Amino acid sequence: MNRESLERRVDVKLPRGGHPIRIGAGLLDRLGPLLRELFSGSRVVVVTDSNVGPRYLPRVQDSLTQAGFDVSEITVPAGEASKNLSQTQRLYEAFTEFGLERRSPVLALGGGVVGDLAGFAAATYLRGVPFVQVGTSVIAQVDSSIGGKVGVNLPQGKNLVGAFHQPDLVVSDVSTLHSLPDSEYRAGLAEVVKYGVIRDASLLEFLSERLGEVRSRDENTLLEIVEISSRIKAEVVENDEREAGLRAILNFGHTVGHALETIRGYGTLRHGEAVAIGMVAATRIAIDRGLCDSKMGEDLEQLLLALGLPVKAPFPADPADLMRLLARDKKVRDGQIVLILPTRPGEVQILDNTSEEKIESILPSIVSSA
Amino acid sequence: MNRESLERRVDVKLPRGGHPIRIGAGLLDRLGPLLRELFSGSRVVVVTDSNVGPRYLPRVQDSLTQAGFDVSEITVPAGEASKNLSQTQRLYEAFTEFGLERRSPVLALGGGVVGDLAGFAAATYLRGVPFVQVGTSVIAQVDSSIGGKVGVNLPQGKNLVGAFHQPDLVVSDVSTLHSLPDSEYRAGLAEVVKYGVIRDASLLEFLSERLGEVRSRDENTLLEIVEISSRIKAEVVENDEREAGLRAILNFGHTVGHALETIRGYGTLRHGEAVAIGMVAATRIAIDRGLCDSKMGEDLEQLLLALGLPVKAPFPADPADLMRLLARDKKVRDGQIVLILPTRPGEVQILDNTSEEKIESILPSIVSSA
Repeated sequence: MNRESLERRVDVKLPRGGHPIRIGAGLLDRLGPLLRELFSGSRVVVVTDSNVGPRYLPRVQDSLTQAGFDVSEITVPAGEASKNLSQTQRLYEAFTEFGLERRSPVLALGGGVVGDLAGFAAATYLRGVPFVQVGTSVIAQVDSSIGGKVGVNLPQGKNLVGAFHQPDLVVSDVSTLHSLPDSEYRAGLAEVVKYGVIRDASLLEFLSERLGEVRSRDENTLLEIVEISSRIKAEVVENDEREAGLRAILNFGHTVGHALETIRGYGTLRHGEAVAIGMVAATRIAIDRGLCDSKMGEDLEQLLLALGLPVKAPFPADPADLMRLLARDKKVRDGQIVLILPTRPGEVQILDNTSEEKIESILPSIVSSA
Repeated sequence: MNRESLERRVDVKLPRGGHPIRIGAGLLDRLGPLLRELFSGSRVVVVTDSNVGPRYLPRVQDSLTQAGFDVSEITVPAGEASKNLSQTQRLYEAFTEFGLERRSPVLALGGGVVGDLAGFAAATYLRGVPFVQVGTSVIAQVDSSIGGKVGVNLPQGKNLVGAFHQPDLVVSDVSTLHSLPDSEYRAGLAEVVKYGVIRDASLLEFLSERLGEVRSRDENTLLEIVEISSRIKAEVVENDEREAGLRAILNFGHTVGHALETIRGYGTLRHGEAVAIGMVAATRIAIDRGLCDSKMGEDLEQLLLALGLPVKAPFPADPADLMRLLARDKKVRDGQIVLILPTRPGEVQILDNTSEEKIESILPSIVSSA
């Protein structure tokens, strides 16, 4: 089977036009023609990080240059710590230096951090310039490059600053997933599991049945995972671009997850690991409230462990401290903490009536003993 | 005539719902009920500056508190220099400290700087929180509080960073215009003249005929000016919220104006003064290209001078330096400088085919000799 036949396309349909997601193996070398279909100008700014840039930037530059683009690039230090306002300012300054115009695209080449940061800069530079997401991590390809949420962290909390800025194009080259460190690859799978729990029980079965291929990063399996995940994310975003309702289900596992990431400083726990633990917490709360059966919790934990993901934090944390962080999270409505709780595989509910006591009582079970 | 009868209302109709503009005398004391019509929560953050805060904050707090709001406030130093990323960061940090939630409004109390800065912070905090514009300057009431353009400056240029974030409510209390320093009041009138030139010849006549009342800040005259200006701005924005076409006409006078503001550092020239000079420059270019007659230029300059506005910069500037700034302005399309040029009173054209030589040849006439 040649590589061309491995290409998939998902179209995200939005009120202001939407955009394609191009999924395939080896697409980095086709970025030039893919961008040329959409942009007639000459300038492109590529934003990447110190891990991804050295590996993929030359190929990206070659392809864009051959398609007639005048390519500038800026590299930020790899890691969540770069997702801040001072790196945003660095990008703005680079954009002015490169003479970026209103119709010149910013291309994010990297994982979720690069996409969120470059996307926020693109959303706010000249009140918004075109944006292309080229995710090179599992999280970027299945989640963060789709849906238009971009932003940076504050010292006070994750993603407190941001915008909705839809990309004009998303390109997911699954070949880039081969080069991810194992722990990062595994962490990204947590978001795939999330899609299964909230929307697609058959995706959970697929993962359970293809554990070997998932672990070995078989290219056909990756294409399948990225395509199914992209379709689910696109469908949810199409129904609720601005997170007025349905889109909140994508936060399954994220409320407790963010609190865990924040309490030890970003970077101690991978985002996907925090989400895995957060999903376990939410499922335990759901079981405790009688919303789903305990089998669902067992199956979820078994799948997460099989994928090499944690079901409790590797550090101790004071439940009262975690509660304070939860109460400060964005997903609070009139003082009530909003939780996404599973009811059965493929289905969740959005609830804001879980008592703080009930939430707090679950927390000791998902952190290590002091 | 009692004050209630002096109230006017303009509705801005936008795809996502639009919002009212409430115009009147003494409206600061009615902010509580006006906000209560729209917001059911308890929290409001008022952003103001060191000039406006001491004068008006107590009345605003009283009115909001009486309507059951829990009011926090943050004061930035008065002046264009506060419209930057570090003040934005200060606001974000204050928002986290005050526990601002997704549905809690940020209220900007002040001139264009406060509105643009607070609006940008509101646009990007939690990916957008509600926003109320309470402009206390002419520029804020007739221009910057309407249309959703918010943003901050970079050292490299004005308004390079920003967003489109529509307010949920605009309140313009014309009584606050009495306390403006004379030079600031006059500068604001430049934007009113702009509306006349681009869209409404009768507004130019009104200003010429009511010079005395305009200068003495007669309240009925102010209401008329703010209402007509608000209607024009609203109408242009309704037709082109994201500045794809028509909205560009609002930039009449602003391209050269921004270059003049930038070349000497923000604050040397008031924004309105720069716009006045920019309008003169654009009109001279239009005359030079045969787009309008020289009488239009004479009438415009006479009106500006009668309103106490400059028709040339009080400092020398190298035309080549100004050209470089023009070419870096946002209003550049594929390398061509886009100019808004008048054809007759109340009508302008958007043109991107004026040669750089023609533009540069006009510039010496609108700056002082070295």
